[in-house]
Amino acid sequence: MTPAVGKKATGLIAATFTPLTPEGEINLAEIGPYVDYLLEQQGVKSIFVNGTTGEGMSLTVEERKMLAAEWCSKAKNKLENVIVHVGCMSLKDSQELAQHAGEIGADGIAVISPSFFKPATVGALKMFLQEVAAVVPAVPFYYYHIPAMTGVHLRSRDVLEGIDAEIPSFRGLKFSGSDLMDFGQCVSYSPSHWSLLYGMDEQLLGALAMGANGAVGSTYNYLGSSVNRLISAFNKGDLTMARTLQQLMSEVSGLVLGPPRLPLLPCPQSKAVSIARKLKQVLGVQ
Amino acid sequence: MTPAVGKKATGLIAATFTPLTPEGEINLAEIGPYVDYLLEQQGVKSIFVNGTTGEGMSLTVEERKMLAAEWCSKAKNKLENVIVHVGCMSLKDSQELAQHAGEIGADGIAVISPSFFKPATVGALKMFLQEVAAVVPAVPFYYYHIPAMTGVHLRSRDVLEGIDAEIPSFRGLKFSGSDLMDFGQCVSYSPSHWSLLYGMDEQLLGALAMGANGAVGSTYNYLGSSVNRLISAFNKGDLTMARTLQQLMSEVSGLVLGPPRLPLLPCPQSKAVSIARKLKQVLGVQ
Amino acid sequence: MTPAVGKKATGLIAATFTPLTPEGEINLAEIGPYVDYLLEQQGVKSIFVNGTTGEGMSLTVEERKMLAAEWCSKAKNKLENVIVHVGCMSLKDSQELAQHAGEIGADGIAVISPSFFKPATVGALKMFLQEVAAVVPAVPFYYYHIPAMTGVHLRSRDVLEGIDAEIPSFRGLKFSGSDLMDFGQCVSYSPSHWSLLYGMDEQLLGALAMGANGAVGSTYNYLGSSVNRLISAFNKGDLTMARTLQQLMSEVSGLVLGPPRLPLLPCPQSKAVSIARKLKQVLGVQ
Amino acid sequence: MTPAVGKKATGLIAATFTPLTPEGEINLAEIGPYVDYLLEQQGVKSIFVNGTTGEGMSLTVEERKMLAAEWCSKAKNKLENVIVHVGCMSLKDSQELAQHAGEIGADGIAVISPSFFKPATVGALKMFLQEVAAVVPAVPFYYYHIPAMTGVHLRSRDVLEGIDAEIPSFRGLKFSGSDLMDFGQCVSYSPSHWSLLYGMDEQLLGALAMGANGAVGSTYNYLGSSVNRLISAFNKGDLTMARTLQQLMSEVSGLVLGPPRLPLLPCPQSKAVSIARKLKQVLGVQ
Repeated sequence: MTPAVGKKATGLIAATFTPLTPEGEINLAEIGPYVDYLLEQQGVKSIFVNGTTGEGMSLTVEERKMLAAEWCSKAKNKLENVIVHVGCMSLKDSQELAQHAGEIGADGIAVISPSFFKPATVGALKMFLQEVAAVVPAVPFYYYHIPAMTGVHLRSRDVLEGIDAEIPSFRGLKFSGSDLMDFGQCVSYSPSHWSLLYGMDEQLLGALAMGANGAVGSTYNYLGSSVNRLISAFNKGDLTMARTLQQLMSEVSGLVLGPPRLPLLPCPQSKAVSIARKLKQVLGVQ
Repeated sequence: MTPAVGKKATGLIAATFTPLTPEGEINLAEIGPYVDYLLEQQGVKSIFVNGTTGEGMSLTVEERKMLAAEWCSKAKNKLENVIVHVGCMSLKDSQELAQHAGEIGADGIAVISPSFFKPATVGALKMFLQEVAAVVPAVPFYYYHIPAMTGVHLRSRDVLEGIDAEIPSFRGLKFSGSDLMDFGQCVSYSPSHWSLLYGMDEQLLGALAMGANGAVGSTYNYLGSSVNRLISAFNKGDLTMARTLQQLMSEVSGLVLGPPRLPLLPCPQSKAVSIARKLKQVLGVQ
Repeated sequence: MTPAVGKKATGLIAATFTPLTPEGEINLAEIGPYVDYLLEQQGVKSIFVNGTTGEGMSLTVEERKMLAAEWCSKAKNKLENVIVHVGCMSLKDSQELAQHAGEIGADGIAVISPSFFKPATVGALKMFLQEVAAVVPAVPFYYYHIPAMTGVHLRSRDVLEGIDAEIPSFRGLKFSGSDLMDFGQCVSYSPSHWSLLYGMDEQLLGALAMGANGAVGSTYNYLGSSVNRLISAFNKGDLTMARTLQQLMSEVSGLVLGPPRLPLLPCPQSKAVSIARKLKQVLGVQ
Repeated sequence: MTPAVGKKATGLIAATFTPLTPEGEINLAEIGPYVDYLLEQQGVKSIFVNGTTGEGMSLTVEERKMLAAEWCSKAKNKLENVIVHVGCMSLKDSQELAQHAGEIGADGIAVISPSFFKPATVGALKMFLQEVAAVVPAVPFYYYHIPAMTGVHLRSRDVLEGIDAEIPSFRGLKFSGSDLMDFGQCVSYSPSHWSLLYGMDEQLLGALAMGANGAVGSTYNYLGSSVNRLISAFNKGDLTMARTLQQLMSEVSGLVLGPPRLPLLPCPQSKAVSIARKLKQVLGVQ
């Protein structure tokens, strides 16, 4: 099997927030500065757009296309990887978004399981994934596992079994679950051209030990440089430093940027102030 | 408060399947005959379209509009109530479908809670419902509670508290859960112009005792006349007959008509044959 | 098959609280007056002891024996049925309690599934039940289904399949779950010498419609006479009255009598006062 | 605060199986050889008895005492730590077992949350733990967190808050959950005289990265020497070797030794043979 065109996703990948205006409309003008900020202030070179952090499931298909196009356009020649999440409740919508992601030059697409009608078996889930991937066979494909949101608790290791024959463009996994046994078995099964991306920022250190070769998360939007230090510390065997930085991530997780869309509610002002204070302490800024 | 325009939904309401071609595309040509069949063969005078039975969440916004328009058109002057489910993951999509339902003359709209981003509180859920209802203030509005699918376990009784002030077009509840204590408390709280519709066919008899004034379900597509007999028997106090008919519903529930969309899988041929055989026995046909 | 010795349990069965001293020790002296109160004030003629209401699982084996003996002794010639719950985490403890219940003349024993080590299959659960029942083959045996407490979600209908051959003393089911479809299928499967006892007081009316021939619950300790009126109203087809009385049960459920044992905490004083006030209103007493 | 008498528990701790005769009775004669085997063949110097692996919750109080006494007696002058699990559904039973553990010279006691009546708050759980600990204030006390079995999902970090004032003999945590964020926050909060013991063998490597200073598990009964190598490899920064050994643990987890008690069922013969074959391969024995 020859790998599909596409770079391997490693290191830190920021799951981007979707910039909204105060009225709750998408705000494309913020995307260019956002890309520059990630690169320059956080040392982050890859992004994951329209995912859970970006509230992709609360956006219309048209909004998701506009956002994906703008992220790809602004990231061009600056970032290494733009992975566009195209999962939807409807297979047709997912296929339309996958097609579009291919046209705008996304470096990869990711698909979550439908969560209203849940696949009863691994086979049913894989048929869904396959139908999306088949639309853009030259675009690297990632399966996005996030059981706490979807209610789909099928083991990722079972999803991976034989998937390279079914989805030749398969390139890896975004694993946002706490079951590190399942994750570790995925690592063990993976060929070298797959990316095993871990998605629960607050326990990244454990996942690195199990063999993660990348991390996707919302925390990396504002703690990217700290987390890069965590990864370096881990790689050098300095676990004391790595644990200190991991603990910092736990403290600021749950940080919310911008007003969300219903049914999510904005963070209460008092809590936002307290988070901001803690973040400043943690980052040592004024 | 003056009730919005709209008839009260009572009695049996068939949750319609979405007719598909063998290729899995929507098949509008089947809708006219479907309406006639329900009316003439099953004695069913109201329908609930694009809901769970109709796999509404697996359809695109455009497909849902085409289907809703065709159901309303073919039901005109024949059926008493066409309630269109307009719930989506995205508030904007729901609002667009609500607007459209108003334009095509739907007798009511129903909205389910978003299930990927789940509302954390009753207040957040009600803000979402309110934003949809506000688009078509003259169209009767129903809240659709189905916790096993959505993972949203907020009590319906709490959702109803004060809702007539927040959503003046509120007209009732489609309750598809097994918690009859919650359902009973909703009945007790309801003014007479609301409809308390029960949605788990297999335990309808219990819900009738608790005070349901209508039933929405997929079973009523093919057992409508039997269930009308169940309701009559219940109203006459003939519980032995009512229980016999209820048991029959349990036996044939899970019947599947037409190929579903992924991630659902078609019923295996062998199981379909066995269901068909049982259904024939139960209905006493050849 | 010949039924085992034992009367059929029907009508209201009070799940008794365990009287404790202020120091939290069992208080046998209260049991005689408790029996008289149930009979004279509430019209309750059967009791279920050492169950969930009685906090049986928080008692030692010796305490459970002392209590069971006292209940049987004081109920003699007064009440119709004393059913002793003998379920434990340990099969040996359950067998010891079953043996003892037989010796003190209990009218029946009931067994819950172990809930720390949960049976993985219906077969494993039935082997456990069978081992307990076999110790006292002449004592009527009831299976006690309460999935919200045990985490054991095996369908009762599947437990009942063929159970009369496996446990000849089997006489019925205490069903404390909300799945009335499962309950209704149990009713449909049951021979006439079984008792189908429903255990969620707040939705008793629904269960009566589905065919319950008795009810076991904590509410019946203080609302026994009201619930007897509910059952009469239901039997006469007066559903309006029945629903009013059902609603009353919902309002006072959660009433707590006496200090519980850890890890349960006593009801806060303020809440107790408010419950007492509501109860008085509801019962129309001063 | 001065630490209570007692050695700090670190490194590998085997969660011992309870030896049973073919008839299912406890078999004390196997305990002496079991201790020698652990020490000599597996390099394991500490044991955790009557826990989940030992099916403690399926044993009677008397059986648990006999077993604990025999383990302590045979381990004397051989093993470093014998921690006796004394958690029960009944507080009184737990207190009796704690008292007994103190008398027989156990190096520590551990307590699980009651799981039938679940504590509703962290405060209620801690009151229960405190009442057990208070019986033997000189015996090191461990809280045993295993949410998948108990259904008690209270965060361990919240349980630890301020616990040294409430339970002066508190010495650590056996954490058998997959939420490494919670575990990591416990590590971060812990003073140096506490032991943070991780209990899910299949993801030990992740927990070591988060700061575990010991591991309790059933796998260590037969893979003790391999896991000691895993820990050494981790400490030397040889993650490739550590992951290979971790993967091996995943493959043989679920191994079952001896017939269990109901409601657990014995491992089918065919599966046992297949596990034995795999274990031999993995360990490189004939």
